[in-house]
Amino acid sequence: MSSKNASKKYIKKKYNDLGLGVKEVSGVYRTLNKDGTFNVRKTNIPFWQRVNFFHSLVSMPWPRFLGLILIGYFVINILFASIYMLVGVEHLTGMKQVGSTFEQFMEAFFFSAQTITTLGYGRVAPIGLMANIVAATESMLGLLSFALATGMLYGRFSKPNVTVKYSEHAVMAPYQNINGFMFRVVNVQENQLLEAEVTVSLSLRREQSELRDFFSLDLERSKVIFLPSVWTVVHPISDQSPLYNFTADDLDAKDAEFIVTMKAFDESFSQTVYSRCSYKPAEIKWGQKFVYLVTQEKDKITIDVGRLDETYDAPLHP
Amino acid sequence: MSSKNASKKYIKKKYNDLGLGVKEVSGVYRTLNKDGTFNVRKTNIPFWQRVNFFHSLVSMPWPRFLGLILIGYFVINILFASIYMLVGVEHLTGMKQVGSTFEQFMEAFFFSAQTITTLGYGRVAPIGLMANIVAATESMLGLLSFALATGMLYGRFSKPNVTVKYSEHAVMAPYQNINGFMFRVVNVQENQLLEAEVTVSLSLRREQSELRDFFSLDLERSKVIFLPSVWTVVHPISDQSPLYNFTADDLDAKDAEFIVTMKAFDESFSQTVYSRCSYKPAEIKWGQKFVYLVTQEKDKITIDVGRLDETYDAPLHP
Amino acid sequence: MSSKNASKKYIKKKYNDLGLGVKEVSGVYRTLNKDGTFNVRKTNIPFWQRVNFFHSLVSMPWPRFLGLILIGYFVINILFASIYMLVGVEHLTGMKQVGSTFEQFMEAFFFSAQTITTLGYGRVAPIGLMANIVAATESMLGLLSFALATGMLYGRFSKPNVTVKYSEHAVMAPYQNINGFMFRVVNVQENQLLEAEVTVSLSLRREQSELRDFFSLDLERSKVIFLPSVWTVVHPISDQSPLYNFTADDLDAKDAEFIVTMKAFDESFSQTVYSRCSYKPAEIKWGQKFVYLVTQEKDKITIDVGRLDETYDAPLHP
Amino acid sequence: MSSKNASKKYIKKKYNDLGLGVKEVSGVYRTLNKDGTFNVRKTNIPFWQRVNFFHSLVSMPWPRFLGLILIGYFVINILFASIYMLVGVEHLTGMKQVGSTFEQFMEAFFFSAQTITTLGYGRVAPIGLMANIVAATESMLGLLSFALATGMLYGRFSKPNVTVKYSEHAVMAPYQNINGFMFRVVNVQENQLLEAEVTVSLSLRREQSELRDFFSLDLERSKVIFLPSVWTVVHPISDQSPLYNFTADDLDAKDAEFIVTMKAFDESFSQTVYSRCSYKPAEIKWGQKFVYLVTQEKDKITIDVGRLDETYDAPLHP
Repeated sequence: MSSKNASKKYIKKKYNDLGLGVKEVSGVYRTLNKDGTFNVRKTNIPFWQRVNFFHSLVSMPWPRFLGLILIGYFVINILFASIYMLVGVEHLTGMKQVGSTFEQFMEAFFFSAQTITTLGYGRVAPIGLMANIVAATESMLGLLSFALATGMLYGRFSKPNVTVKYSEHAVMAPYQNINGFMFRVVNVQENQLLEAEVTVSLSLRREQSELRDFFSLDLERSKVIFLPSVWTVVHPISDQSPLYNFTADDLDAKDAEFIVTMKAFDESFSQTVYSRCSYKPAEIKWGQKFVYLVTQEKDKITIDVGRLDETYDAPLHP
Repeated sequence: MSSKNASKKYIKKKYNDLGLGVKEVSGVYRTLNKDGTFNVRKTNIPFWQRVNFFHSLVSMPWPRFLGLILIGYFVINILFASIYMLVGVEHLTGMKQVGSTFEQFMEAFFFSAQTITTLGYGRVAPIGLMANIVAATESMLGLLSFALATGMLYGRFSKPNVTVKYSEHAVMAPYQNINGFMFRVVNVQENQLLEAEVTVSLSLRREQSELRDFFSLDLERSKVIFLPSVWTVVHPISDQSPLYNFTADDLDAKDAEFIVTMKAFDESFSQTVYSRCSYKPAEIKWGQKFVYLVTQEKDKITIDVGRLDETYDAPLHP
Repeated sequence: MSSKNASKKYIKKKYNDLGLGVKEVSGVYRTLNKDGTFNVRKTNIPFWQRVNFFHSLVSMPWPRFLGLILIGYFVINILFASIYMLVGVEHLTGMKQVGSTFEQFMEAFFFSAQTITTLGYGRVAPIGLMANIVAATESMLGLLSFALATGMLYGRFSKPNVTVKYSEHAVMAPYQNINGFMFRVVNVQENQLLEAEVTVSLSLRREQSELRDFFSLDLERSKVIFLPSVWTVVHPISDQSPLYNFTADDLDAKDAEFIVTMKAFDESFSQTVYSRCSYKPAEIKWGQKFVYLVTQEKDKITIDVGRLDETYDAPLHP
Repeated sequence: MSSKNASKKYIKKKYNDLGLGVKEVSGVYRTLNKDGTFNVRKTNIPFWQRVNFFHSLVSMPWPRFLGLILIGYFVINILFASIYMLVGVEHLTGMKQVGSTFEQFMEAFFFSAQTITTLGYGRVAPIGLMANIVAATESMLGLLSFALATGMLYGRFSKPNVTVKYSEHAVMAPYQNINGFMFRVVNVQENQLLEAEVTVSLSLRREQSELRDFFSLDLERSKVIFLPSVWTVVHPISDQSPLYNFTADDLDAKDAEFIVTMKAFDESFSQTVYSRCSYKPAEIKWGQKFVYLVTQEKDKITIDVGRLDETYDAPLHP
């Protein structure tokens, strides 16, 4: 039985492991960027393995996405117009058979546009085998392309966007008869977030070393049933906290990073959403407390999100 | 070790935290409206951050949604008809070149409608560069718009709607040899709800204060594997209950609110669904018990949902 | 502390609660039908509350679904043909202005079909305000209808169908040095089921009463990481089992029902799927054991699903 | 109470059960193929039960999927062209009424293509009842088919593909003051994987038997909050490990197989994804350790995925 206990020491049951590898990450300025992306680059992965086109098309900004569609529409019509020119404009009935090549190309271009969108006015129509084969192929390609566009648009719209806003700064503030590390989080959208769950990890550089240790910080409460209001997340700095008796200089010296992850269920999208945030020592105000945001107007609770970052002086316990 | 225990007191392991902030919510008539929405308003959030268009379009009532589509269709055709008028009706072959401006505008309007839907009868068709460019753009815009509409319609239909109905009133009724706080919930749709889980929280105003305390109420059973029938949720008022020895007047004086949340898996939509409800003192009947809804007809269990709110007198235990 | 324990007795922590209501269900032949549907009927629910159209359209058999679409297409064209007739066939250019009313109606019918599908050959085309308004409305309605059909078809195809097959009979068989209640389950599709989890509940009628008690049965194993093969689910009838010392006659007398639920993650559909089954005393073979289905052919494990129900004699332990 | 404990021995609470059936799988070379598919074949299942068409169409390689669509388009046009020929080409106005049958068939073929895509140039258009019925049916069939294609394309694109790469070999390497079984896993795509969870099971053949035993291996850490970097999964071979004091020959003799499963949440697709891998004795390097992949370039962590399989000599503890 003592051997059983002995062997247990090799197993880290801790859930709050960040997957960052205690020994392998060293002396990095910031693991997690302020916007929640990772400060990590992977090399030597083939392009086709690394990139997922659906994901890229669904995640890119709207102007770029719409621009790509427009350019694609333009290019494919240029392509098919050229093919119709090669086949011969005499196979497009209704088209002016006289005129410059440019005029003919433009007519072919617009005929192509009418074909790929399955508009088919019919003023110009294909005659003969080759022109008909090209037109039949193009109209089918058009339907598939717009099927694709439909999927992409749905993918873009049905993707929950992160609706959570963290306070720009964290604070060290008095908490009951000790002190606490605190930050605030609020859901800025009308969507309800349910079963919100927060974890906070602390990364500290070892003294005279480039290696880093990761600590999971206990929170006053780490899960709430719903998040209609603002949530002040508190890590009480008790004598069990890795931050016990730390000063601002200690945090600087150890190049501390507070890594925050939040998981919640977005009721509008029926999906689990995640968000991340990180606080470096320069983003922590010592001896400050967040102001109350909640007031009551008539029979409604009102939250002034504009004051999310506002603090007031609150001397720390010694 | 005693210091370890001491530090534990700062950590609230309780899962049933409502995220409403014990200290910050004060003296509100009702946290949760009867329909499950929150009585919360957030200010100072930019419009584009607060609103999610997909969510709005998917959640709005059908008449408004269809009305928006119709108006959009009308406006966009007005717009393109104006552009065709600007380009010149002489570039639309097949159109009457004589007639009033209104007649010409109407022809341009219907040509636009035939183009944006990719109908393209071809009686009227564009001639020349400008008219063709406008028509090619419009037909493509049309396809994208209807791609969007396809996604919206799918989003609306595939969104599970809340299928759960709570009893209008809760009751205080005898339960075994003590009393209990009880309400009923039934799934009114044909969809099966699986792994249904209920939590009940009690919000009480502190005496001579505007602050509120939140209590999680233990339930006779808080999770069921499926919910084919009616479920009477019971909080036994034992000596451990925050309601122990309470009278109706106490509930009134403390402006009590019972906040109910239910989570279940909707088998038809393969999605987790949530619903919420709230009971105020005026919605609680004392010394009443719910009637049985379940009868057996031939070999089928029958549940009379119409009697969900029916109760009969049942004197409370002292 | 003793009062704390005393109050605990009102709380049923048991997860395996079926939500069937111990007291309210009485003397029913079968709670769960053999196909996994519930033997429950709900009355006094308004039709529009009970029925979800998306769910109905997505769940109905294919012939009925396609039939509905065809009928809808037919009816809507009849309707619009009538409107065109009312407006006057002289407003449909290209149409024969002579001929019987039936011939004209048929032409209007096919013009309607060409409009609602946005086909728009243009041989017949609307002239004048009224005919154009109807056609513009119809083409838009057509696009919306097919947008709807697209969503429905996707909903139908992306819905995971139950791929699990239970053995027709359960058995009472020797298990180690006691006996066990056993049944088998196999995934008949090529989809992988992951994290499969089974619960078995036993419903027994009380002696000389119509009331029923529900018991959760402990299983040899209740969760497996994947289910590529056949799984024999075993409830060991130890002295802790509610079935301890039961005979076949006891099960009959108590009108027993074994209610099986299975939950798994369908890797192909990326969705959690549920299935249910129920065994009545007549579907249990005493003193029989399931034959092995697994053989090895070359380097491949082979499972003969056709023998899922095959058993051989195996005398029970006394 | 002792009887209660006695009865517990029949219940395997172990979560890490593979569902492979300890007794029924025997002497198989490999349970899990290197690509994560199961080495299992099921017989005697009717074709229509075994195959799910949506799943097949969504999972097949792109060239085959696009090929199927093209062939389907070709075949359906051949079919409808034949029907138009049967009805009589004189019912297709605009078509050349003279010419060879082949020429007429080609015209009918292209008319069919213009109809099924709802292109409808109108140069050729149906006249008369029969031709119109066929065309109206075809255009509607076309819309439904492309609705289907839209769904399939969306299904294909929105399906998360496995983005995880395992090291080709596992190693037996020194770990603290004992040894460990180790392998590496990395996410090669830009998608974030969250809450990654790994289980490792060991399958060993019993001595002088074809039966197999399955063991769940304890891991240094089995769950990480996110997986931005490379993760070295370690099973410490303590005196509690089923591998304690094993040599390479022992693994060979017992035909060992290490079965790895990984579960994670793919943030881009908002879906839970699974991946599997398996190591046989020939794929394990003894006395080797993985090289570090992580370096720091400016303020960015860089991971050289190309060196995932690289190891160096590291003598094992005795």
